[in-house]
Formats: sequence, structure tokens, C-alpha cells
Amino acid sequence: MKGHVSLVGAGPGDPELLTRKAVARLRHADLVLYDALVDPRVLAIARRARRFFVGKRAGRHALSQQEIHALMIRAARRGQRVVRLKGGDPFVFGRGGEEALALDAAGIPFDIVPGVSSAIAAPALAGIPVTHRGLSSAFLVVSGHDADVFTRAVAALTPETITLVILMGVARRAALAGELVNRGWRAQTAAAIVANGSRPDQQVWRGTLGDLAAERVTIDGDAPAVIVIGDVAALRLGAGLAVPDEEQARATQP
Amino acid sequence: MKGHVSLVGAGPGDPELLTRKAVARLRHADLVLYDALVDPRVLAIARRARRFFVGKRAGRHALSQQEIHALMIRAARRGQRVVRLKGGDPFVFGRGGEEALALDAAGIPFDIVPGVSSAIAAPALAGIPVTHRGLSSAFLVVSGHDADVFTRAVAALTPETITLVILMGVARRAALAGELVNRGWRAQTAAAIVANGSRPDQQVWRGTLGDLAAERVTIDGDAPAVIVIGDVAALRLGAGLAVPDEEQARATQP
Repeated sequence: MKGHVSLVGAGPGDPELLTRKAVARLRHADLVLYDALVDPRVLAIARRARRFFVGKRAGRHALSQQEIHALMIRAARRGQRVVRLKGGDPFVFGRGGEEALALDAAGIPFDIVPGVSSAIAAPALAGIPVTHRGLSSAFLVVSGHDADVFTRAVAALTPETITLVILMGVARRAALAGELVNRGWRAQTAAAIVANGSRPDQQVWRGTLGDLAAERVTIDGDAPAVIVIGDVAALRLGAGLAVPDEEQARATQP
Repeated sequence: MKGHVSLVGAGPGDPELLTRKAVARLRHADLVLYDALVDPRVLAIARRARRFFVGKRAGRHALSQQEIHALMIRAARRGQRVVRLKGGDPFVFGRGGEEALALDAAGIPFDIVPGVSSAIAAPALAGIPVTHRGLSSAFLVVSGHDADVFTRAVAALTPETITLVILMGVARRAALAGELVNRGWRAQTAAAIVANGSRPDQQVWRGTLGDLAAERVTIDGDAPAVIVIGDVAALRLGAGLAVPDEEQARATQP
């Protein structure tokens, strides 16, 4: 029996936002290697699998990237069905590309199961469309984790022309917003933070780029969060009108 | 009984890339209003619903945006469960924001079911990660449909700094690529087109920006397609190693 690896996107958190293919891969997995942003309710679907946390906790990596590669390759060679489970989509800052290259080099069969990206879904669930006719016809998704990376990406932009979506930037929000203001973005530009998007403890903060730069923000800074900057961040579609349809939700429980 | 509307993302085409929430909404729908990019296998899940095509065919809209709004509102007021089904994600060039505003104005309860966006998934399924350490740490998603919109978005960019993902641009590919070259992008920049991403008839073309500009492209120009421009477009992860796991696929058929 030949093993294989699936690089699977777990979506933003709500297990109902898993794809059917992700659910199938989890149900049949022998081994699941998962990151910090994966919800426990998602992991619970992989009932027959051994499950290993391989992500980052309290700033430290449980395993190096090389160790993750070696673990996946060894298990697949033993004939196991391995799921490498990543928050959101595997190729949106998930290092999925590096893992795919390592699997290619080792000759291990693998497939990619795209997921719902938090970059689009977290704003959406807070009533913010990343594109909207007349307000924004393009959006840039960038990581806020590394100062140099962020600077290179936004240095390329004319201020305020598109929606800016920043992942992994909430801890550095004041510095990131300050940099944009210094580059000519208006302090009045609308901004929002969606923390724990799609989860029961979702929090939304709304304000301006100036508020962000001055740390006039009330939100739990430790939760995974998406920052949206641009005119669309002032929208609040469906506020108070959401349809929590319990009957429909139950119909697809694992 | 109170009706409501769900703005649902159908994902890139493969019914296995529907979210569980999308499947639940389709199964319980009384009325489904769908666009041109929605796969017939996805529609088939809405067994008990009346299904209306409201998209664009042969360049003509079946219904105006105002007529779509009126139809959703009328059906919800009659107590129906309406699914407004869109290819990909409802807020990525889907006019979902306008529909949400119309529902808000009419006081109709609605929810948003984010989908897997073709902007990320179609490249991924061709082995192209939109971000990749050392190659690209940001990506811009833009529509290629309207010349002015495209120009405004790319005029804001320093050439070749990020991955450019163009939706709805395949018919205008030569003009779009030519504009980028005129703005200083190297003709040698890697480019790819993924048509019918995730579907059985997925086609991938690979080449350079110069090839695109000179129409040295072999791909069916009428299929829905995603254009990727940037260093990552030269990657081809998992070529020849994919895992078509029929057993797992069957496990989640409707």
C-alpha cells in the first residue's frame, strides 16, 4: 500500500466552512499534522488519526520546517495517509509551497485541498466585502509579520487605491499603520480588525488608520486576526440581520 | 414563517470544494438564483429548489442587478429560503456587496457563506502557490474585465514586486499583458493561465508575460480562467504526482 500526503486548508475556523474534500481527507487520515490556527472542532473530525501539533506556540516552533518535512515523508513511505492541516488556505502564507517542494523532491504523491482563506472570509463575516463596486476593485493580501516584507509590498502601492488585507499583523498593528500614514495614506482611511473570524468568539473592531497607528484599539491582541484597510472597511453589511440557522447547521455535523 | 437569503460562494467548480455550510444551504433552499460560473453538479445538490439562471450568457445579462434584488426580496418576503449562488466567493467581484446592501435596505435577514476563491484555488490546483517564501510575500487580486479598473490597480504597483492574480481577464489577456510590459514589467516574467480550475476539463498554460502580450498562448479563451503573473507562476508543484483518491471522493457525494 502506497501512502500519500494531502496539504489541506482548514478554513477560518468554523468547521462548517471546511470543504467536503477536507472533511473526507480528515476522516480517512492515519496521521494529521496541524498548526496553531486549526480549530479543535476541525481536528475532532479526524477520529481515526494520530494528531500532532507541529505549529508555533508562545513564539516557539514545536518542530522545525525540516522536521515537519521529514515526518510527512517518513509516514507516507510507511504507507500512511497523511493530512498536513493548515489554517485558511495552504498557499496563503502557509509554507505549503515549501512542503510541496520537499514532497516532490522525495517522490511522495500528494494533493492540495484549497481552503476558504481568512483573508477574504473573516472580513466577509464582519460585513466587509474585500471588493465592492465603486469602492474597491482590487485587493492586496500581505503578511504583517515581517517588517521588511510588509515594507516591500506597500512601498509598491499608491496610497488608498485598493483594499489592503493584512494577515498575521495584529501584534504589530500600530507600526504597520504608522508606516502607511508615513507613506501618504490618510489617517481617516477606514480600518477594521476581525479577530477569530467565523468562530463563536469572533470580535470586530472598526475605526481609522489613525486610530490603529495611535493604538486606539479595543480588541484582544493575541487572537488570530485580519486587518482590513480601505473604504470597504467602513461597510457593515447585514449588521443585526444574520441568520443563525441551527437546523441547517446540524444537518452537516460530522 | 420568515424567509431569508443566503449569499453563498460555490467555489471554483469541483463540488467537493463546496463548504459544508454551502451544501446545507443548497439542500434546504426553496429557490436558487445562480450565475454562469456555477457548475451543474453543484446545482444538482439543491434538489427541492426552483433554480433560476440570473447570470450573463453570450455577453447578455439574463436579469439586471435590480431585477435580481427584487426577485430575492420578493421570495424572502413570501417566506422562502433563497440561495444566491455565486462562483468562487460572493465578495470577490461577485457583486455580493451590492446585493447585501439591497437586502439590508429591504430589512431581509441574510447571511454570507464564504467560498473557496478561484483566485487562490485555481493556481494552487495547477501547482502554483500565490505566496511562496523567497518568491512572493503578497498577492494582488484584480479584475481584468474593465480596462480603467485594471489600469488604476496596476498603476499603483511597482513592477514585479508581488504576485498578480487577474480574474475575468482571459479575453483581454494580450492587452492586459501589453500594459504591464509598457509599465516596466519584464517580458520574461513568468505567467500562467488556469482555465476551468478544479474541473475535469482544467487546462493550464505556462509561459511569459511577453508570450501573453504577443498572443503566443494555446488555451480555450472562452472558459473561465485565472491569470497569474510573477515568479511563482514558474512553479509546478506536484506535477504528475497528484492523488486522485476515488474512494475518498465518493465518501462525500451528495
